[in-house]
Amino acid sequence: MSENNFKINEHSLRTAISKVEPDKIVTRGYNQRDLIEKIRYSDMVFLLLKGRLPSIKEGKLFNHVLVSFCDHGATPPSTQTARLVASSGSPLNAAVAGALLSFGHKHAGAIEKTMELYQSKIDSLMLTGDADIDNKQIASLAIDLYNEYIVSKNTKIPGFGHRYHNADPRADKLMELVIKEGCVGPHTKLALAIEDLLYQKKNIRLNVDGANAAILSDLGFDPKLGLGVFIIGRVPGIIAHIHEETIDEDEFRRFCDIDDIVYDGPGR
Amino acid sequence: MSENNFKINEHSLRTAISKVEPDKIVTRGYNQRDLIEKIRYSDMVFLLLKGRLPSIKEGKLFNHVLVSFCDHGATPPSTQTARLVASSGSPLNAAVAGALLSFGHKHAGAIEKTMELYQSKIDSLMLTGDADIDNKQIASLAIDLYNEYIVSKNTKIPGFGHRYHNADPRADKLMELVIKEGCVGPHTKLALAIEDLLYQKKNIRLNVDGANAAILSDLGFDPKLGLGVFIIGRVPGIIAHIHEETIDEDEFRRFCDIDDIVYDGPGR
Amino acid sequence: MSENNFKINEHSLRTAISKVEPDKIVTRGYNQRDLIEKIRYSDMVFLLLKGRLPSIKEGKLFNHVLVSFCDHGATPPSTQTARLVASSGSPLNAAVAGALLSFGHKHAGAIEKTMELYQSKIDSLMLTGDADIDNKQIASLAIDLYNEYIVSKNTKIPGFGHRYHNADPRADKLMELVIKEGCVGPHTKLALAIEDLLYQKKNIRLNVDGANAAILSDLGFDPKLGLGVFIIGRVPGIIAHIHEETIDEDEFRRFCDIDDIVYDGPGR
Amino acid sequence: MSENNFKINEHSLRTAISKVEPDKIVTRGYNQRDLIEKIRYSDMVFLLLKGRLPSIKEGKLFNHVLVSFCDHGATPPSTQTARLVASSGSPLNAAVAGALLSFGHKHAGAIEKTMELYQSKIDSLMLTGDADIDNKQIASLAIDLYNEYIVSKNTKIPGFGHRYHNADPRADKLMELVIKEGCVGPHTKLALAIEDLLYQKKNIRLNVDGANAAILSDLGFDPKLGLGVFIIGRVPGIIAHIHEETIDEDEFRRFCDIDDIVYDGPGR
Repeated sequence: MSENNFKINEHSLRTAISKVEPDKIVTRGYNQRDLIEKIRYSDMVFLLLKGRLPSIKEGKLFNHVLVSFCDHGATPPSTQTARLVASSGSPLNAAVAGALLSFGHKHAGAIEKTMELYQSKIDSLMLTGDADIDNKQIASLAIDLYNEYIVSKNTKIPGFGHRYHNADPRADKLMELVIKEGCVGPHTKLALAIEDLLYQKKNIRLNVDGANAAILSDLGFDPKLGLGVFIIGRVPGIIAHIHEETIDEDEFRRFCDIDDIVYDGPGR
Repeated sequence: MSENNFKINEHSLRTAISKVEPDKIVTRGYNQRDLIEKIRYSDMVFLLLKGRLPSIKEGKLFNHVLVSFCDHGATPPSTQTARLVASSGSPLNAAVAGALLSFGHKHAGAIEKTMELYQSKIDSLMLTGDADIDNKQIASLAIDLYNEYIVSKNTKIPGFGHRYHNADPRADKLMELVIKEGCVGPHTKLALAIEDLLYQKKNIRLNVDGANAAILSDLGFDPKLGLGVFIIGRVPGIIAHIHEETIDEDEFRRFCDIDDIVYDGPGR
Repeated sequence: MSENNFKINEHSLRTAISKVEPDKIVTRGYNQRDLIEKIRYSDMVFLLLKGRLPSIKEGKLFNHVLVSFCDHGATPPSTQTARLVASSGSPLNAAVAGALLSFGHKHAGAIEKTMELYQSKIDSLMLTGDADIDNKQIASLAIDLYNEYIVSKNTKIPGFGHRYHNADPRADKLMELVIKEGCVGPHTKLALAIEDLLYQKKNIRLNVDGANAAILSDLGFDPKLGLGVFIIGRVPGIIAHIHEETIDEDEFRRFCDIDDIVYDGPGR
Repeated sequence: MSENNFKINEHSLRTAISKVEPDKIVTRGYNQRDLIEKIRYSDMVFLLLKGRLPSIKEGKLFNHVLVSFCDHGATPPSTQTARLVASSGSPLNAAVAGALLSFGHKHAGAIEKTMELYQSKIDSLMLTGDADIDNKQIASLAIDLYNEYIVSKNTKIPGFGHRYHNADPRADKLMELVIKEGCVGPHTKLALAIEDLLYQKKNIRLNVDGANAAILSDLGFDPKLGLGVFIIGRVPGIIAHIHEETIDEDEFRRFCDIDDIVYDGPGR
């Protein structure tokens, strides 16, 4: 880091997101007065993350992605954490923060991993030089992945299979819409080709993370933003659970009471 | 809490938000397959928080509210916290959590306070029994509030005045749209009446929190959800800042370096 | 805030805790080289929080307080939150942060409340002017509190009663030690006088928060630091649980699985 | 995970840390009544993390380690985060949580990395079979590390060098005490051998993380607990800063004000 950068580091901050002046705020080059009046909230999210407004088709797809992440009831650990924290009387923002801390690599980590996987495979094809990718190339990529994960490593392919669903209804609908809207890009092709193989051989299907990882990759999102998009989609559901918890519960929640806790240490 | 409730408390959880079954998720009574295909993300947020879909006009207003909270550059402490945490190499979700923890009563606390203020005053009028509220009643409420806060307590009225803006461009645009769309409810009338007084006497105008507190109150939102709606609107901006920070910075950020820290303890 | 303060606010920071110079760190007026060599960690905590080293008796009592907060198994919501977050694969610091967020006013909030209660009552006696407080005055304070909380408000007195213990073994031992070491100050006298009444009339006894609130008040701690001292005492236990969780569990924890979640919303 | 384990996962929890019964709490096999009366808080921390009480020498060293982590003024990002969050009016526990979230791999991550490095190198020597390790073996390990990091990779060796200190006074004192107390184990030998080389060739010396990583490794701590021990040592300092911030500041803190923020996006 140059001395000059270093000084900036101490006392000031560079940003390309918004410019704040007295009585005027410009975000990604647009006056916020116009954004408030004219654009859909999902397009605003796209603008903030990508630095440009989406096309009509991109905007439709991105809206589907955000809606599909909204809520999975009280089953996820993050939602249970939100309710546990909220029931202690902590403020709403602290309960949302607690929920976010539950997004470790075992929970909600699949989106980023799957985006990296799809993008690295498709990028390697791109490098082979031919203008567009034919289905044979995609099919052989899928076979390679199947052999790499299932046959050699005997592990799961991220983005496939779900604890509660055989056919994740969100993934199924998302793929239906992408096809219907004629937006099947190379990453989505790859996801569908993997699903064909996994479904034939092991009755395993695409899940919501795998479907959205493909769509977000076709939309040109950096894998580092995969968890970010998931968080944006899920936070409203988490807040609904926190509000419900604070209305319903008059004492703090303990998911295990003393009888459910087995002590296996010394002095039993 | 009844013994029965108590047991439920330990081991199970009641929720009216989503029902999860194998291959089917129902949220607020709607199949998620249909929600993903048909609704705007901002309407999904409304559905999650309010338990019903908005009317077309409600949906338009709520979309304006969410967009208006999107970003205020790197000026808010919460955004500075997000960048500080992200620059240490913590994961994105931890940096968002850190930002949320900066929403204390001195920062982003005004929305809830303002919603409570407007709603308590309007509710008290409602109780007087007459079907609808005339402008004379609203004007006298505004005068009461002015006298209570400014004259007696010599303090600020929450929702008015801004550190950087004389006329907060977001509040101004929001009020313009509410009027244009013919959605001026009693809480918005009250906000505008207070602004008239404050502007005449002290050149102080409505800010984005005050404007949205009025709109959300007219939309029937519980003040307890005020911070929640703000968080939903602001999280995408925070994530954009975190992503920018992790791309730009190669060392952790210190906003003060050693020369900026004044030691005034013993052994100087 | 003066202009001068304001500028300081922006770019620099005043602190009386530590002075950092090249190759030298002075904390509360002591060279850290000497502190590392000579003092007990519990005395270091006292020095940081109070700005002075404890007397031998103060140091002994404060050490008892810290040890008494160490762990209550996996029963507290905060510990359950720590394990829930850790089991998702989030880093250790994020799991500790999650646990801390569970300290809402319903959980671990009693220490501060009890310190405020004891200190306000004892301060009011002090104001009456007589040099030291006799037991008759303390006894009548206890009766006033009993009547105020139990008789009039029909609520609990903070610091008394425990979900799992009739006689909280930590409170009992702490009081035994305070008496043995001849450190019964006015706040401890008050706690014991309230216990006498509550035990006679309702078989309710002092809990660990009530005992430590009395001791910390006699040690001159600000109630605002009550939760801080609890956190310092409890964090090692939380970290032990997080480490145990990450070693034992190979999948993320859900305290409720799908069968334990009752949906009571529309479309049942 | 077996079906049986799976069920336990849902509804109950195994722990070897504490056993809670009515009126009795046993931690790591000891009655808490006895622990409160008899042991030092630093020994309690050791007991919680290691599952056994330390020897007298182990206890002395571990106490030095905890004290040495206490505070580094307001210079660390974590402390600046704590003050930023606290100044917004968030509760103390939320401000501590915010500080912990700043411990990313670039900040406070060095302890774990250094423990892994020392332990992997020493373990590899152990495997060569000879009962105890002579200084020649250690010296050649140090040379290997120097060549691996400095010569080949041209990177830093974790645990060496400090932003503000040439000779970190904490590391220097810790090593002095370890030698004085005759507790120089193989990991400490390795740290000192690396320091000899680095100091000769590059005038770089051991820092507090490197010194404590060596001591904790000689004490048999799992590297996964390195950050945990740092957190336990540092939390009291963070709480002192939060308390100071809430007493001193009457408005929320912004480390950068609008003039310090450079906008480099579109529409400049």
